[in-house]
Amino acid sequence: MQKNRLILLRHGQSIYNKENLFTGWTDVDLSAQGIKEAQKAGEILKDANLFPDICFTSWLKRSIHTANLVLENMQWEHIDCIRSWKLNERHYGAWQQRNKAEVKKEVGEKMFLAIRRGYDTPPPLLDIKDQRAPINDLKYKNISDCKLPLGESLKDTRSRTLNYYYEKIVPHLMMGKTVLVSVHGNSLRALVMAIKNLTPLEIIKVEIPTGKPIVYQFDESLQMIGKNFFE
Amino acid sequence: MQKNRLILLRHGQSIYNKENLFTGWTDVDLSAQGIKEAQKAGEILKDANLFPDICFTSWLKRSIHTANLVLENMQWEHIDCIRSWKLNERHYGAWQQRNKAEVKKEVGEKMFLAIRRGYDTPPPLLDIKDQRAPINDLKYKNISDCKLPLGESLKDTRSRTLNYYYEKIVPHLMMGKTVLVSVHGNSLRALVMAIKNLTPLEIIKVEIPTGKPIVYQFDESLQMIGKNFFE
Repeated sequence: MQKNRLILLRHGQSIYNKENLFTGWTDVDLSAQGIKEAQKAGEILKDANLFPDICFTSWLKRSIHTANLVLENMQWEHIDCIRSWKLNERHYGAWQQRNKAEVKKEVGEKMFLAIRRGYDTPPPLLDIKDQRAPINDLKYKNISDCKLPLGESLKDTRSRTLNYYYEKIVPHLMMGKTVLVSVHGNSLRALVMAIKNLTPLEIIKVEIPTGKPIVYQFDESLQMIGKNFFE
Repeated sequence: MQKNRLILLRHGQSIYNKENLFTGWTDVDLSAQGIKEAQKAGEILKDANLFPDICFTSWLKRSIHTANLVLENMQWEHIDCIRSWKLNERHYGAWQQRNKAEVKKEVGEKMFLAIRRGYDTPPPLLDIKDQRAPINDLKYKNISDCKLPLGESLKDTRSRTLNYYYEKIVPHLMMGKTVLVSVHGNSLRALVMAIKNLTPLEIIKVEIPTGKPIVYQFDESLQMIGKNFFE
């Protein structure tokens, strides 16, 4: 019996990952290496007979393209793909699109680490008129303004991601489905924190690699009863 | 006011269209020309400011890849993509994967036309053990066997497509959404027959070109109040 399975996948390497820039909600595509990582993840899941019944992605193309490549390589493209901004990467505020080394030099290592690796410290917020603010992007126009971030701590990201997880993803797990979630480093951290009951101190140490599927199996009361990590 | 809009799109040219083979549920991909047609359709919709709120496809990859290419070219990939086998092309039974000219020579022009262009004549059915029968494809394993065809008349295709249209697509139109339906020649004929109240004799004369979006606008009671055909 192989049921109630959650497949977590961090998108393959993006162009910004490669260039050492803060990405956040910047909608950059996969790099050539990222494409290969996604294709490989599809092969891994196919070989392991892990065919999802439904797929969730964020609204960012690196997450969407990763899922498309995974499903194409599994020859399993016919499943519904549901997308939400609540699964987006952490919004990196005014640091988005900036070089990580330059920012570190500018703000000092202590503040850099507090924001980058801390749990409840947000980055400097964007001005609401900044072009990088989601409110100025046509895609987000139907979302009430107060919900759209100008910069988030990991705690903020966790809050909206878990909200979505319990409302939209868990019902499929409860029905015994196999669910693929192709998203981002920090939205995945939020999910892992909930699934494994980790504290804020524990979760900030967790690094989730790109393109390596993590599979959790649950019992009927949604207690985790197994985990597989595919290299 | 631009609301309650249904965008119908026939997938771009497939490899089988190009080779003059009966395709039906055979899961062949787009040809190089088909890819270009889909990309062009995306540009057309973007230029016309026709951004969909939700997308529907069949379970066949030529329909799925067309939608992916359209949305990628619109830079509008964040919408949910819902897929159903009920939007698949007409199932061409034992004629699937066979050359059209050869079949015509074999069965004679009269029978060929009755099956290919008639309304309620099915092609020769597949044997249930035939590898081309959907029942033998893993993707279709959760669908009750009695619903899966071994060959369909246009009338049969119409029946399951309209069933799905009224149950799953119309509710989004009634909510004032713009809906993209990226499917096939005969599933589109079924939809056009319903929208325009055409008779069986009228619908068999309607040819729907690949890659050219057809946009219907409806009032609140779902009466068609406008049509645009994009070349």
